[in-house]
Amino acid sequence: MRAVVIREPGGPEVLEVREVDAPEVPDGHVRVAVRFAGVNRADLLQRLGFYPAPPGAPQDVPGLEYAGVVEATGKGARRFAPGDRVFGLLAGGAYAERVVAHEREVAPVPDGLTDEEAAAVPEAFVTAYDALVTRARLAPGERALVHAVGSGVGTAGLQIARALGCFVVGTSRTQDKLDRCRELGLHAGIATSGATFAGEVLKATGGAGVDVVLELVGGAYVGEDLKACALKARIALVGLTAGASTELDLRELLRKRVELFGTVLRSRPLEEKIAAAQVLERNISPWLASRAVRPVVDRVFPIGDAAAAHIYVASNASFGKVLLQLGG
Amino acid sequence: MRAVVIREPGGPEVLEVREVDAPEVPDGHVRVAVRFAGVNRADLLQRLGFYPAPPGAPQDVPGLEYAGVVEATGKGARRFAPGDRVFGLLAGGAYAERVVAHEREVAPVPDGLTDEEAAAVPEAFVTAYDALVTRARLAPGERALVHAVGSGVGTAGLQIARALGCFVVGTSRTQDKLDRCRELGLHAGIATSGATFAGEVLKATGGAGVDVVLELVGGAYVGEDLKACALKARIALVGLTAGASTELDLRELLRKRVELFGTVLRSRPLEEKIAAAQVLERNISPWLASRAVRPVVDRVFPIGDAAAAHIYVASNASFGKVLLQLGG
Repeated sequence: MRAVVIREPGGPEVLEVREVDAPEVPDGHVRVAVRFAGVNRADLLQRLGFYPAPPGAPQDVPGLEYAGVVEATGKGARRFAPGDRVFGLLAGGAYAERVVAHEREVAPVPDGLTDEEAAAVPEAFVTAYDALVTRARLAPGERALVHAVGSGVGTAGLQIARALGCFVVGTSRTQDKLDRCRELGLHAGIATSGATFAGEVLKATGGAGVDVVLELVGGAYVGEDLKACALKARIALVGLTAGASTELDLRELLRKRVELFGTVLRSRPLEEKIAAAQVLERNISPWLASRAVRPVVDRVFPIGDAAAAHIYVASNASFGKVLLQLGG
Repeated sequence: MRAVVIREPGGPEVLEVREVDAPEVPDGHVRVAVRFAGVNRADLLQRLGFYPAPPGAPQDVPGLEYAGVVEATGKGARRFAPGDRVFGLLAGGAYAERVVAHEREVAPVPDGLTDEEAAAVPEAFVTAYDALVTRARLAPGERALVHAVGSGVGTAGLQIARALGCFVVGTSRTQDKLDRCRELGLHAGIATSGATFAGEVLKATGGAGVDVVLELVGGAYVGEDLKACALKARIALVGLTAGASTELDLRELLRKRVELFGTVLRSRPLEEKIAAAQVLERNISPWLASRAVRPVVDRVFPIGDAAAAHIYVASNASFGKVLLQLGG
């Protein structure tokens, strides 16, 4: 089969398409013929050598999510039959024509979703759902702040918060992305390129502040989040594009009884990956089926253009998800 | 009745005993003849003018906890009768011979506890239970790190963690306090006056790190806590004696999926105060009755020596709780 391989740590040019052995199908697993794989910022870090795949995952083939068709099932695997349309998360290896996963890590694609749309779902929607709902306990009627709201996780988080009946404030560097987020239900957009949004968030919420923050930027944004928070707010730290370290006002954290937590999907053990797949199947798929939320696909690159896909993701120009087409 | 009044913001000398009107008993409330009140660090801050009482609470009489005897009950109050021994938390005003509280904010003193012991319980044990168990979800078999382990909240947290079946590491500036904590069940003590404990915590836990931190010091300790934490650890920030601001490594927070939250009891609304009283009655009192945990009283000052009590608390020399005797 063909796969996109990281030849050595480096720039986009180290990605090359190679013929590699198709993976065996262990007991309880399924093999999926991948049609589309999502391109994530984590893949870029992995390519640069900064974010090695966890043990057991392919080390030199990036790719954390896929949609495709079941091709073979291992001994004892009963949930799927060849021909079933499925999607899911992986610790790596999705930039390939075939992947294997434990059958409980795999979810059926809901009716009405194209393969392309399906591949844009897992990482963005599971990350946002896990952070906003499972961990931060976002509840109907609460106010949410979603940073980088035009990103894959941002557009997913915005729609999940809206589907729950929340008021949503978003930030982005680009006014154009905020305008497009309006169509996805964004109540208030703040165009900003720095950690100076708290005043506007407070204004947009009538002085109340927000109950939950989906923090995809990190760095000084976290301190500013604290200022924008209501009493008993939860800040879900998912990304660190603005920096890994910051000065924090602990008095504010204490006084407002704020909860700040970090969360990351990729390195989780099997039982938690299965829990994530169940979120996809039980919580997100019904919303997808009813069109309460919808995947946002910006652009699809063919397998041979993985380098261009990485350059495009790094440019921050995309709105929603960038995909790699592997088959179908 | 007599009460200890803050004449004006300032040093311990501004505390004076005055004759003031005894409080009325509103519907649903009880009036308690106070025998002992706890002296807390928050009282010292309030005396200095840095921590005003929340609206509705007495502004010039400190005191967040008491033990005493019910003296009168308001219309509709049915939980207690005159003569009942009770204890509880208040937003202020406990340095007085009488206090009033909603009957649901008041808990019965379990058999076998003296009035003095009872007064040493509410703030320390409810704070520690709320932080460690309710919020940080400390579970049997987990590892806990308790800072300022010789303090009122520290000795309570240590005992609660032990009663749950946890392994407990504690820090203190004084070796003598660590030695005394051994008798309360401390597994490993670290004598430190700075934020340099992570290596020793890791050593004490066989490299595993801790699952929950009861953070009573704040400042640079929080960054060091992150280094001492296991995957999915929870850090409960309760005190800030070492400073209100710190540099935080968000990458570590993200990678280990750590949860950091601030918590404070005093400013909570009625329904949460009632929940705190229920913790006292349902969760802590059975442990007190079975002697699985016990209040640690360091010293009792008479009502006229409130200034001396404040000086003593500020000196950090105390082990466990300092009380003020008001009657009985």
